[in-house]
Formats: sequence, C-alpha cells, structure tokens
Amino acid sequence: MNLPAVACAADHAIQAQPLRVDGARLWQSLMELAQIGATPKGGVCRLALTDLDRQARDRFVQWAGAAGCSVRIDAIGNVFARRAGRRNDLPPVMTGSHLDTQPTGGKFDGNYGVLAGLEVVRCLNDARLTTDAPIEVAVWTNEEGSRFVPVMMGSGVFAGAFSLDHALAQRDTQGCSVAQALRDIGYAGETVPAVPPRAYFEAHIEQGPVLETHRCTIGAVQGALGQRWYDLVVSGSEAHAGPTPMDQRHDALLAASELTLAVNRIAIEHAPHARGTVGYLDVFPNSRNVIPGRVRLSADLRAADDATLLAMDAALRRACAEVATAHAVSVDIQPVVYFAPQPFAPELVATVRAAALALGHTAMDVVSGAGHDAVYLARVAPTAMIFVPCAGGISHNEIEAAEPAHLEAGCNVLLRAMLDCAGVVD
Amino acid sequence: MNLPAVACAADHAIQAQPLRVDGARLWQSLMELAQIGATPKGGVCRLALTDLDRQARDRFVQWAGAAGCSVRIDAIGNVFARRAGRRNDLPPVMTGSHLDTQPTGGKFDGNYGVLAGLEVVRCLNDARLTTDAPIEVAVWTNEEGSRFVPVMMGSGVFAGAFSLDHALAQRDTQGCSVAQALRDIGYAGETVPAVPPRAYFEAHIEQGPVLETHRCTIGAVQGALGQRWYDLVVSGSEAHAGPTPMDQRHDALLAASELTLAVNRIAIEHAPHARGTVGYLDVFPNSRNVIPGRVRLSADLRAADDATLLAMDAALRRACAEVATAHAVSVDIQPVVYFAPQPFAPELVATVRAAALALGHTAMDVVSGAGHDAVYLARVAPTAMIFVPCAGGISHNEIEAAEPAHLEAGCNVLLRAMLDCAGVVD
Repeated sequence: MNLPAVACAADHAIQAQPLRVDGARLWQSLMELAQIGATPKGGVCRLALTDLDRQARDRFVQWAGAAGCSVRIDAIGNVFARRAGRRNDLPPVMTGSHLDTQPTGGKFDGNYGVLAGLEVVRCLNDARLTTDAPIEVAVWTNEEGSRFVPVMMGSGVFAGAFSLDHALAQRDTQGCSVAQALRDIGYAGETVPAVPPRAYFEAHIEQGPVLETHRCTIGAVQGALGQRWYDLVVSGSEAHAGPTPMDQRHDALLAASELTLAVNRIAIEHAPHARGTVGYLDVFPNSRNVIPGRVRLSADLRAADDATLLAMDAALRRACAEVATAHAVSVDIQPVVYFAPQPFAPELVATVRAAALALGHTAMDVVSGAGHDAVYLARVAPTAMIFVPCAGGISHNEIEAAEPAHLEAGCNVLLRAMLDCAGVVD
Repeated sequence: MNLPAVACAADHAIQAQPLRVDGARLWQSLMELAQIGATPKGGVCRLALTDLDRQARDRFVQWAGAAGCSVRIDAIGNVFARRAGRRNDLPPVMTGSHLDTQPTGGKFDGNYGVLAGLEVVRCLNDARLTTDAPIEVAVWTNEEGSRFVPVMMGSGVFAGAFSLDHALAQRDTQGCSVAQALRDIGYAGETVPAVPPRAYFEAHIEQGPVLETHRCTIGAVQGALGQRWYDLVVSGSEAHAGPTPMDQRHDALLAASELTLAVNRIAIEHAPHARGTVGYLDVFPNSRNVIPGRVRLSADLRAADDATLLAMDAALRRACAEVATAHAVSVDIQPVVYFAPQPFAPELVATVRAAALALGHTAMDVVSGAGHDAVYLARVAPTAMIFVPCAGGISHNEIEAAEPAHLEAGCNVLLRAMLDCAGVVD
C-alpha cells in the first residue's frame, strides 16, 4: 500500500496509565440503544434518517450532553460531540461511526464505534483527565446506504468524496429526499467547513471471520481493500432442453457458471488479500426444461492495491472473452463501482497495535474488506481502525453478536490510542 | 433401445401410389386454425380447455364431419375423427397430436400433427380410396401442461399412464378442475374403454435444430429420450463479500456453478443422445456484495436408454458429493420426475424412413428429446413419429416457423405410412 504522511505522533508520551473504560457501562449503553428499532429476532432495523434513527441520535445527543460535550450538527446531519481539551484551537482527535443499520441489521455494526467513543469521554470524565487537543465523537449519516445511496454518505460529504448538494438531492424508493428526511427528523444542521481532525480512529466489529479464526482480540487495520464492481450480461439462445443436442447450444447459464468460477479463481490467484465474489445471478427464462437464453450476474473484485486490482480487472475481461468464445454466447461487461484501495496511516496503525499489546491483548494486522466511514476520513486525516471479533464473522444480520470482553478491549485500545494522539495534560 | 413387438406390417403392399396430399390446403387449414388465439407477435395462445381451445376443437370437428368422419369424444376430452375402412372391426390406424399451445406458443406445435391427419383423410376422399382398416385422427387433450398438469394428459389417460379420475381432479391456478373445464367447453365425453390402435403415427415439427443443421427434410424418430429431473439445494453460509477471505467461504453459488458444469459434462460424456441441462437457478439472498448462502437449481438429464440414464444419475450424485466436500457446503438432491426412455416400433420407423426415401425426400434417423403424445401411445400400440424441420429449431415460441414444403413432405410421408399399415383395398 502507498501510505500517506501522518500528522499525529506520540508527542505526549502516555504514562503507564491505569485508566480503563467501564466495559459494563459500554455494554449497558449498547443494549439500551439496541432497543431503538429492535427486531423480534434480536437484531435492529433502524434505517437512515427515519424516526428510529432520530430516536437513536437523540439518545446519543442526550448522553453526550450529560457527559459535558458540546454538540454540533452539520448540513448532512453528521453529529459531532466535543469534549474540550486544553488547547481548543487544535483540530480534535476524532472517533465515531454510525447509528443507522441494515433492514435486518445487528446491535453492534456502527453502534459500537459511536458508543465506544462515548465511553472514552465518560472514562476521561471519571478520571477528571484533560487532553491537550479536544476529543470528538462523530455520528456519520447513512453509512449503510439501505435507504439512500451513496453509502457512507455523511463521511463522504465530510471528506469531499461527493458534494453536499448531491447527497441532499438523493431520494429513497418513496421519493423522499435526504434533505427532506433531515428536516423531518430535525437533523438538518449548519453548513460549515469541515475541519479535518488531527487523527481519526474508528472501532468496529470485524464483520469477517479472521480474528475469530486466529483467536485474536484486536485487529490493527492496515487499510481498506479497493473495490471494482461489474454488471455482466451473458446472452445465448433459449432452446428446449430435450431436442437440442449438447454441441448446438448457446447456454447462457453454463457460460455464467464458468464466469463465476473465474471470478473466484482470479481472487485466489491474487492472494492473500484479494476477494472475488458473484453474489447476484439472475436467469432468464428460468424454467427447468429450457436452456437459459440470458443471465445477468454481478462480479465484485477487491484487492489491497491498485496494481493488483487492475490485474484482476484484466483477468476478468480475458475470462469474459474466453467464455464467450467457448460457449458461443456474448458477454457484456460494465464496470459499475470503483473504490480506490485506502491505506491507513502506518503510525496510527502502529499506535493501535502497540496499545493492544501494552494492554495485554492478542493483536494482529488485518485489512478491511468492507467500506467504513474511516475509509473516507482517511482521505483528509491520519486514520486507523480497531477491529474486534464478531461471532462467526457474521454481520448485516440480526444474529450479529460480539463478546462484551472483546468490545471492552477494543474500547480500551481506542482510549489509549486517542490519548496518545490528543496528548494528556500533565 | 429395447424395442417392443410390432403388430402392424406391410401386409398390404402399396402400389407405386401417385397419391399426394394437397400442401396448399394443409397450409390454408394451418393458417386458419392459427387465427384462433392468434397473438400480436404471430404466435398462438390457446391454453388447454379454454374457450379458444373449444373454438379450435369445434373447427376441427366441423372439418372432420365435412370430410365424412364420425366423431367421438372420450371422458378426458380426446377427440377421435374416424374414416371408415372396409373392415371396421379392425382397430384403426391412428394419427394425431394436440390443439392446445403454450402461452406464447407457435402455429405448428401440435396443430400440424392434427391437420396433417385431417389432410390425409381429405386426400383419401379426393382419391375415393378405401382403406382396409379404418383411419382415425385424434386430438389429445392438454399435451402442453401449461394450464393443467400432468402434461400429455389425454394421451396419458388413453394409455393408462395415470387414471381418468386423477386427471379430472387436477386444477388450474384459478381452482378450476379439468372436469369442470371439460364441461364448460362441452367436451366432457363418454367413458368408454380405450381401444389401442393398430398403429399410431404422429407428424410434428422437430422443435430442435438437427434436421435443419443436416439440411434434411424428414426425421424418422427412433424413440423418445428418457428423462430424470432433479431439484438440487446447495446450502452454504451467507457472508459479507469484502471481509471474508477466499479460504473461509461456504459459497453456495460457486458450488452450484460447479454442478451446472458437471451436468453439462455428464451429458457430453454420454454422447450422442444424452442431454444435461440446468434451466432453473435461484440465488439467496442474491445481493452483489453478499456471498450466496443458498442456491436452488434444477437438473434435467436425458438419454436414449435406461442404462445410460442410470449411469448419468450416478455421475450426478458423485458430482454433488464431490462439490459439497470441495466447497464446504451441503448439497441435497431430490429426484422429481422420471420418464422411461420410449423406443418406437422399428418396423414403423423403417416404414417412415422408406416412405420418405420413396417420395424423394432426404431423411435421417433422429431421437425425440421432448415428450409427445406418441410417447404414451407407444406404451399401448406400435408407434412412430415423423419430424419435419422448424426454423432455427425454435419452438414454444411465437416466432416458431416451418416451411410449407417441409410440412407437405411430412404429410405425404404420413399418408404413405398410414396406407402401408391400414392396407389399401385393391
């Protein structure tokens, strides 16, 4: 990965702090927040900018106010809860995540990052500890993208990935715009320039199985994989499955199956961090005794660096051409999404790793295969993420689960890393 | 193929008959019938036992009556138009097919076989020629199975493949029973024992590309492929496409793609007559960035003999087991349909072949990959089919097309073969 310069370093050495977060309080807040939009199966349905989202935001604002924070809302509805430092002219050390969920989401995705930040503030309050730079906890609007696209909307506007006007103009399937939804829930804030933080950390459940497989508590996230998404259409000829000899077919599903295997093979050939997935596949006419005439499928390629991602792109295009010839069909390939690989700041990743080890936790370097608000923040500020395990690597699912001890450990790492960047007043 | 004993032979030699059908009249009748249920795209939508089916049946009955036939309806609505012979105690030499179509069907599937039979009768009338055995033209109820299952219902009841009561009790998606639909259109006939014909011939468009590819006018059909249909369910684990490493996946679609290729490979390994098709495949949750957790798919295996079909069955089951292990998923396989391979009577197939060649047409031996009423008739009577080409091998489609010259040639072969079996009175 190409790594950005880092603005923040351990200029204020942390003493061997005995400071620890209150894991029980963190868990209690998570469980309380999970009541807002709770589903019968134990998950959470709290789509962005709905009244349930408002309730969760209101609860956070109330908690942050009670913890002595000043709260500011920006024009895309991002919430910033600020705990003053000694030098409030300095950019803050920021943490955060999101409170919106998938339709059948869990209790921890996003919510953990927000409440871990709140717990850091509460912990500093308990210890009557003043940081040099201020601390901020951010709630980013519409990370999930379930109701409005683009995903990671609030952090994307903050980082200048797309414009505020573009985001405000997006509409849900009912025709309601983001601007209207923000007004409806009372979170259309002020248009102010986004000031990049001194450093940004985000604690998150891993949403994958790597930490659990390695029996490791803390993942120091080196960066996020780049993504290239494609729509493929295979066009053959429908024909009756009985009378059509095998050598006179133009079977679109057979060709699509070859492409599905190719996408998998391409990822394996670009190990260790590459991914290749066909998640969507639609067959026409989809009748058991008709040779399929047309198949639409997706391809999702991910890699840690652009050179690898481009090599995978070329391999996929070669596979399309070869499969088209071999199966006497046509294959159309359309790129639909490109996210650049996003390395995190190596010094901050090292800070996370060192904090985990100093606290006595097992830790390993990992990559983020998924997008997070931190990926946009990394465009404008030194950034790192802290992953903790989730059961079975399962997320975006009502059965999403995480161990209280792991959540507490990740929050302690966050505390230590933020103090490291913010500086502790002696 | 195991071949049944044949009851009919050329005991009355045909003189070098100058007799020929009237191709223009046949075409005219086909085009007139195609008006009943005509679709804007040039096809026909005439579902079984609808009022349109009644109109087509009425037209046939009127034409048959005008041609001097006596008409009888049986309890499942099959129509039998009989042209008396010299010895009406003999079982008839029968031909026929069906008048119902697919929802987006063509002008020729089924209709050709019925009207070719009618043209044979008209031609014999024109020539004032009396056969020894009577001639019958049958219209079989609900061959297509689009509105009611089982398919090939009328011929199935006639041949004892399933009971009359079972057939009458079937209902369409609106809840209307076959019994009720027959009463509604006035085609609920008398319950009489089905007398197997002396011989049964069915003229039909090929519905496949073999004749056209070989530039051949007449296919002498050796028999129908046996069929084994399966429902497969691949169960893996849904997971986020980004964070899940390639070696920790349980990707149901990847496994299903391997199975799709296996079904194809199994058919190729059992050439020349084997077929293997996955026509239906359904992915859950079918989201582009979620590794599929479950895939349902069909498998359709066909072969000319049971030994081959059983070997293919075993190969498919081996593939399921191997794919399950290789991709860490489970594969459930459920057989859903079995049709035994049905050889036709070799003497009648030879009669068709000889007639075609005597008439100066190109001819080749073919197999029927699809089901036809003749396949059930072959269980109770010596049977053969006469295939003629259709454009591009396309059928069950509004663009289904056939050349008038080919249809006329097939009808002349039918005439000659029927005369061969019925005997011509000197």
